[in-house]
Amino acid sequence: MNFKKNTAKNVLFLIVFMFLVSCKTTSQSTSNKEVAIQGAHPKLILTKEGVNNIRKHLGNVPIFDRSLATTKAEVDAEIELGIFVPVPQDFSGGYTHERHKSNFLLMQKAGVLYQILNDEKYATYVKDMLFAYAKLYPTLPVHPQTRSYARGKLFWQCLNDSNWLVYTAQAYDCIYDWLSKEERDVLENDLFIPFAKFISEGNPQFFNRVHNHSTWGNVAVGMIALVMDNDELLENALNGLKTDNLTADMKDNDGGFIKIEGQRLGFFGNLDEPFSPDGYYNEGPYYQRYAMYPFLIFAQAMHNVKPELKIFEYKDGVLLKAVNALINLTDADGEFFPLNDGQKGMSYYTAALVSAVDIAYHYGGNNPELLSIAKKQDQVVLDDTGLSIAIGIKEGLEKNFTKKSINLSDGRNGDEGGVGILRNESLELVFKYASQGSSHGHYDKLSFSLYENGNEIIQDYGLSRFVNIEQKGGGNYLKENKTWAKQTIAHNTLSVNEENHFKGEFEIGSQHHSDLYFYDDKNPNIKIVSATEVNAYPGTEMLRTFAIIKDEEFEKPFIVDLFKVKSATKNQYDLPYFYLGQIITANFDYKSFSQLESLGTKNGYQHLWKEGLGNPSSENSVFSWINNNLFYSLTTTSNTSDELILARIGAHDPDYNLRREPSLIIRRKNAQNTTFATVIESHGSYSPITELALNAYSNIEKLKIILDTDTYTAVQITTVNKKTKVLIISNKDNSKEKNHTITIDNKEYNWKGSYYYN
Amino acid sequence: MNFKKNTAKNVLFLIVFMFLVSCKTTSQSTSNKEVAIQGAHPKLILTKEGVNNIRKHLGNVPIFDRSLATTKAEVDAEIELGIFVPVPQDFSGGYTHERHKSNFLLMQKAGVLYQILNDEKYATYVKDMLFAYAKLYPTLPVHPQTRSYARGKLFWQCLNDSNWLVYTAQAYDCIYDWLSKEERDVLENDLFIPFAKFISEGNPQFFNRVHNHSTWGNVAVGMIALVMDNDELLENALNGLKTDNLTADMKDNDGGFIKIEGQRLGFFGNLDEPFSPDGYYNEGPYYQRYAMYPFLIFAQAMHNVKPELKIFEYKDGVLLKAVNALINLTDADGEFFPLNDGQKGMSYYTAALVSAVDIAYHYGGNNPELLSIAKKQDQVVLDDTGLSIAIGIKEGLEKNFTKKSINLSDGRNGDEGGVGILRNESLELVFKYASQGSSHGHYDKLSFSLYENGNEIIQDYGLSRFVNIEQKGGGNYLKENKTWAKQTIAHNTLSVNEENHFKGEFEIGSQHHSDLYFYDDKNPNIKIVSATEVNAYPGTEMLRTFAIIKDEEFEKPFIVDLFKVKSATKNQYDLPYFYLGQIITANFDYKSFSQLESLGTKNGYQHLWKEGLGNPSSENSVFSWINNNLFYSLTTTSNTSDELILARIGAHDPDYNLRREPSLIIRRKNAQNTTFATVIESHGSYSPITELALNAYSNIEKLKIILDTDTYTAVQITTVNKKTKVLIISNKDNSKEKNHTITIDNKEYNWKGSYYYN
Repeated sequence: MNFKKNTAKNVLFLIVFMFLVSCKTTSQSTSNKEVAIQGAHPKLILTKEGVNNIRKHLGNVPIFDRSLATTKAEVDAEIELGIFVPVPQDFSGGYTHERHKSNFLLMQKAGVLYQILNDEKYATYVKDMLFAYAKLYPTLPVHPQTRSYARGKLFWQCLNDSNWLVYTAQAYDCIYDWLSKEERDVLENDLFIPFAKFISEGNPQFFNRVHNHSTWGNVAVGMIALVMDNDELLENALNGLKTDNLTADMKDNDGGFIKIEGQRLGFFGNLDEPFSPDGYYNEGPYYQRYAMYPFLIFAQAMHNVKPELKIFEYKDGVLLKAVNALINLTDADGEFFPLNDGQKGMSYYTAALVSAVDIAYHYGGNNPELLSIAKKQDQVVLDDTGLSIAIGIKEGLEKNFTKKSINLSDGRNGDEGGVGILRNESLELVFKYASQGSSHGHYDKLSFSLYENGNEIIQDYGLSRFVNIEQKGGGNYLKENKTWAKQTIAHNTLSVNEENHFKGEFEIGSQHHSDLYFYDDKNPNIKIVSATEVNAYPGTEMLRTFAIIKDEEFEKPFIVDLFKVKSATKNQYDLPYFYLGQIITANFDYKSFSQLESLGTKNGYQHLWKEGLGNPSSENSVFSWINNNLFYSLTTTSNTSDELILARIGAHDPDYNLRREPSLIIRRKNAQNTTFATVIESHGSYSPITELALNAYSNIEKLKIILDTDTYTAVQITTVNKKTKVLIISNKDNSKEKNHTITIDNKEYNWKGSYYYN
Repeated sequence: MNFKKNTAKNVLFLIVFMFLVSCKTTSQSTSNKEVAIQGAHPKLILTKEGVNNIRKHLGNVPIFDRSLATTKAEVDAEIELGIFVPVPQDFSGGYTHERHKSNFLLMQKAGVLYQILNDEKYATYVKDMLFAYAKLYPTLPVHPQTRSYARGKLFWQCLNDSNWLVYTAQAYDCIYDWLSKEERDVLENDLFIPFAKFISEGNPQFFNRVHNHSTWGNVAVGMIALVMDNDELLENALNGLKTDNLTADMKDNDGGFIKIEGQRLGFFGNLDEPFSPDGYYNEGPYYQRYAMYPFLIFAQAMHNVKPELKIFEYKDGVLLKAVNALINLTDADGEFFPLNDGQKGMSYYTAALVSAVDIAYHYGGNNPELLSIAKKQDQVVLDDTGLSIAIGIKEGLEKNFTKKSINLSDGRNGDEGGVGILRNESLELVFKYASQGSSHGHYDKLSFSLYENGNEIIQDYGLSRFVNIEQKGGGNYLKENKTWAKQTIAHNTLSVNEENHFKGEFEIGSQHHSDLYFYDDKNPNIKIVSATEVNAYPGTEMLRTFAIIKDEEFEKPFIVDLFKVKSATKNQYDLPYFYLGQIITANFDYKSFSQLESLGTKNGYQHLWKEGLGNPSSENSVFSWINNNLFYSLTTTSNTSDELILARIGAHDPDYNLRREPSLIIRRKNAQNTTFATVIESHGSYSPITELALNAYSNIEKLKIILDTDTYTAVQITTVNKKTKVLIISNKDNSKEKNHTITIDNKEYNWKGSYYYN
């Protein structure tokens, strides 16, 4: 890379700029030449040109003006309170942790306020705080809390130290020119350079790795390198450390591998590896949301300082695609689907997504649909990108962001399974057939969750953690995350012989992924996705197909779930549905226990209370519940020897770390090849105000598997009005062009492609 | 009463009116003289003058115009579908039930539309439907469903038949003049008179009683009597049947007594007996809401037809006070506190409250605060009262309805206990020390519930019923309503020796009530209420005091709960807190069971799972939970021999009729005289978006009972900042004027009145 060329350009730019701009900033620095030689700051996220443009628009761009006012009020209040840089001591949730976290956020904001408002009190606040850190930092040992595989100095883990530097680098950039050379030297020598070296060379197990933690580390070092024009640090940030002494058997706190031979490292490595070409991040949306900020903020910085690297075009524009993928991975309320370790409630209202949306709009061709998201967020970043959004909204350019059905591939080359989201009217079905998802992955191949109007109907449990709530294990992952949340039985997918997928072994799971069989959203009335998993249980092949079908015989779109299993041996199959809500009725008899025991002793089964146990009383088992004043019915084909288990989470959970939520588990014992055919309907409504119950019954009189061979599976749905509908899946040939003809019960079916419905 | 005088007045009015009004209505009746003799219709709810006034304003009163448009659209759609008058067959929730229910609502609306829009298609619709009923009704036996103590003909209970007649009488009134005499004769002789006689003379156990059911019956007969000018029926409606052959031991389906000697009967009896002078209705707000409609609609009709009776001034204006009480019995979202049998979610958005608010505004002096409720309801009744509201809103007269702390007496003379609601900032505490509450009463003397921002924090369970959801016991009361919801242990109050208050016997409970000790809301920072109960457990006296205190040492107002018990014997005391949310932490050790059993075998205990059992580890037991992203802490003074039980509802509930919600139960064994002192704090917040946990800990370092004698109970609260606060209750003297002086730990306290706080 040619840094000199860039510096020269900056100098030229600065000279031109100084003619054009009347800069009111009074600098403490006595040497303007010095500034020119260093390159004009700010240059990282804010630029001199951008700041000028912002100042011109102030008072005339409502959402930007409001965001500025909010930020100003917040920082002004903190300036009143004074500066606190305590000796590090606590886990997340504790005082010192939260104080240092506030500090970096405040410095970044104060830096921006200094630039935009041209008021030195903000520069002084940043400077004073930085000098307090420059005084403290050299005295610090590693953090006293010992839980992390990579302990930081300000925080209990290097990850949080990196967060600090990503934000603080921006603050430093904003006041860089205002500081004297001597001041900068103190800060760089006592604070920034040792800080950057500690989280990189000092912690290669953290820094030299493909992981969201490492992304933060790389970006932290990269950001401060760009501000300081430090080529060595920048090279490490972009491409990783040349040597690291890491060994292949090392693991992090979550059990994830640290070193994988042959992986590209540094920022580029972290950009290559976890993102699929569709922009899906392998750990899932909760961590993608977390990772997006360093990826995008550094991309913005690189775009400003190293435009020749065309970072936003890298890997066919994957960073901008990732923003689109992430928005599509939210429910109707903008909350992320909690795939893998995901905390429920996190949504595109988080600051990282404000920044992501602003950047994607500004650098991604001004997609007017993003403006509607920004309008809901009701805040913008205080830089060029936020200004673009504010102007766009002011000019009324926004269009509604319509989330359609979408299939997102997983894996760096897009060939390691994926996530399919089927949408129709108020319903959203999320089907996960992805790769392991790194250390945050769950053992839940072919699992799904179902949403209506943003409410969970059949839930994915998410993580077991109360992020930053100190009383709950310091706000960190709880042991129930491993013993429950990651386990196969905690998910809406098949558990065979009460064992986990891949025996719950990360090493095995990481070698495999499910495979897309077909995905088709062409027909507006039928969205369908199908995937296979052949490695989770060696010797057992699974093919699961979900369709969401809009049919005039039904009030709303309904879900068909076909789970075909083929095995070399006889097994016990458990297929849970973690419905949320209260049971209205079930058509099968069950024993309700007056003494509760857990369903098993390990693999997550120890956390389930066995509340009831029944057997199908007919060929179909029908189970109805009410959730959020809407009725739901699940109709499934049954063998008379099946068991129907009414279970509830919460056994062996002394600290109440788990939510006491229910599950219906279909258990088929001593079975080899079998198919579970299930239809889930949303129907009717209840109002506690009018006390009217509308359409409170299932519309299905009978559900029948009318053919089930190696090549085809066909189900027939008969409605209460005696209308019949047939769905046929081609099990062996997923070609969209292939013509099929089969006869079932003397009726001939002809179609082209992987499925038939009529 | 002199009906003749009134009829004469009506005739005079009609003559004057016919000069003033140009009536476009074409009547099928050939004899205008006939109309004049009958009295001019409409006269019941709509009046000719009122209709004229409405027509004048149409198009110029937005909320009225919208309500009219909504009603018109609904009725027009139903007219398109045609008329269905099926042979009665089903329980509530079933087709025939819901159809007949729709029919009466539609007829009432169509009648109004005919009057306001002057379009005969609506009159024809009402007429055709009425004739269908007139044809069906004489053929009907009693309803085939046998569950009710008073089976109807159209519906399974006379109650619903009465609903039908209350609405249908209004429809008939609207088209009365438009029908011919011959048509009216058919309707009256084949339908209305036999209908009214069946629900009165035919069912004295339903009609001749003080009960919300009977109110509907009385009003139904009264309404049709007013339309038809039938003095005999009106007399029965107002004062009850002269003879009824009822005996003192008869009970209804809910176990309520049917006959109580000496009670006044009929509408006046039902108005006298259940309403306290403050407008509190003894069954609780859910049934008050249900009862308000017949009370008020009949009052409106009486006001129109018999203005000389001054019905709105009856018993010092109790009907209008009742509307005010009812609005005050709602949480911040307008949902009624579910005292006794109350279905959660029912709110002042229900149609009965639209009507109540409109009537209270129109006849109650145009209180501008009611306009703000009407504005939220966003609909009005299509009559004079709705027009008043619409004009008021249009003129911008509304003021915010500020719900303050309020104490509502119970009992016809206001001397049978009551309900105190303490409010401060976002918190509302509901303290119930009322009388039994008729057959819908629960055995829960001195119980309470706590709300924040309209969310339940410590819940009252409410009823066990899925109203109108047919799959759940026909939508009727479930057996768990008796075995759980009414039981003492299901409530946040004291259970002694695992027995119910009054042994759970309605006969005993009905003879007693708790008594107010004192209520004081004068101090804006301290709202306090205290009550005694000495009959629930003979030989045991209970004094419970709640205060909600705003103190600068605390982030938000906090609750003090002092429960003093004095007994002739040693007992086991169980004091539950049905918190909602997830446990964050507890400062005591407890055993968490790996096998669950119910807490007991009867009196509701059989429905509680015993999940955990612990003992206090210090003088204070502290228990924190999170609900709706706010933190709560309960700190209670403990004896080391106390047991702390973590329980959950749901044992012995095979049909999942109960919600699986938790409780913390403080159990004190082998105790005689004792005091439970508890502080409940709401503090801090959590955001799953910023992932910040703020103020997540209790502010209390120590809670101590520093004095507890027959005459005084004093507690001292020490905050984490070492500030101390003392609350003292005078246990023997509730005079507001009495001066007290006591010395505790060498400190002298002087104050005037029933409590001290500083």
